[in-house]
Amino acid sequence: MAENDDIRQRIRTIPDFPKPGIMFRDITTLLLDAEGLRLAVERMAAAVDGPVDLVAGIEARGFLFGAALAVKLGAGMLLVRKDGKLPGATIAEDYALEYGTDRIAIHADALAPGARVLLVDDLIATGGTARAAVRLLRKAGAHVTQASFVVDLPELGGADALRGDGIGVHALVAFDGH
Amino acid sequence: MAENDDIRQRIRTIPDFPKPGIMFRDITTLLLDAEGLRLAVERMAAAVDGPVDLVAGIEARGFLFGAALAVKLGAGMLLVRKDGKLPGATIAEDYALEYGTDRIAIHADALAPGARVLLVDDLIATGGTARAAVRLLRKAGAHVTQASFVVDLPELGGADALRGDGIGVHALVAFDGH
Repeated sequence: MAENDDIRQRIRTIPDFPKPGIMFRDITTLLLDAEGLRLAVERMAAAVDGPVDLVAGIEARGFLFGAALAVKLGAGMLLVRKDGKLPGATIAEDYALEYGTDRIAIHADALAPGARVLLVDDLIATGGTARAAVRLLRKAGAHVTQASFVVDLPELGGADALRGDGIGVHALVAFDGH
Repeated sequence: MAENDDIRQRIRTIPDFPKPGIMFRDITTLLLDAEGLRLAVERMAAAVDGPVDLVAGIEARGFLFGAALAVKLGAGMLLVRKDGKLPGATIAEDYALEYGTDRIAIHADALAPGARVLLVDDLIATGGTARAAVRLLRKAGAHVTQASFVVDLPELGGADALRGDGIGVHALVAFDGH
């Protein structure tokens, strides 16, 4: 059995979502499976390099694996949210979309300088959101050197771009295509 | 020390969010604290009555405690999302807002009939979303008899309304007022 094939088999592919031509890798079927969820969190935790103070999860699917990982690692959980969702004072970062820009935010007081932060999301594609999250966390004083994903779509280049930003990237499984 | 005062002290109150007059109970400070997060999940798990097949977490903050609880309980995790966010075929349920209505959805194939489901969110206020989630899960064939929250605002009546729907309600802490 290839590495993490038991995880791969629990991920469903839905064609043409959210738009025609996209093969959507749907991790909700992995989450529904108690054993799949347990294995995913366990293996993501095992791949973490050194101590972590905070897991930063990207809204909304990054909250799922992020919070479970934080408990597993004995770390706290930091929310990277769409701008306007956090109740306290925030700092924000823009990133490019195919058309236009979007903005993510964290609480301005969420981080102690030098806090060791692991970035988590369900999937890395072009990496626009993840790279913006790294810039934002570093602007806030975090020491961010690693990121963990369930799924990588390597052809879209996000994981390589993150590595170029000095981030060690781990993903449980990779899928060809978009 | 009153019950769960160590949790209560880690929850921040932000006045006038999202609008004037609301005292927003902000659980992000609890999440940031590794020990607070660990204790919250441990005590939510300890209050669960009998075996659970699936934890149903309400987007987005319910994903945080929900996924960590699912791993702790050895259950799977089911996503209750805003309509339009799930990639597969869904069933949906409307609920009333102060002005207008909103709609939540789950994947139509997420549940086996009779699956024992624990509903999780960070906070119960008027209970509009939680009650809609219970209706939706039951419509899909789930056996839903309990719900777990970090914060209850009992004056807003949501927990009592859920009890009237036949749901055992547990919350770690209660706050007066809105």
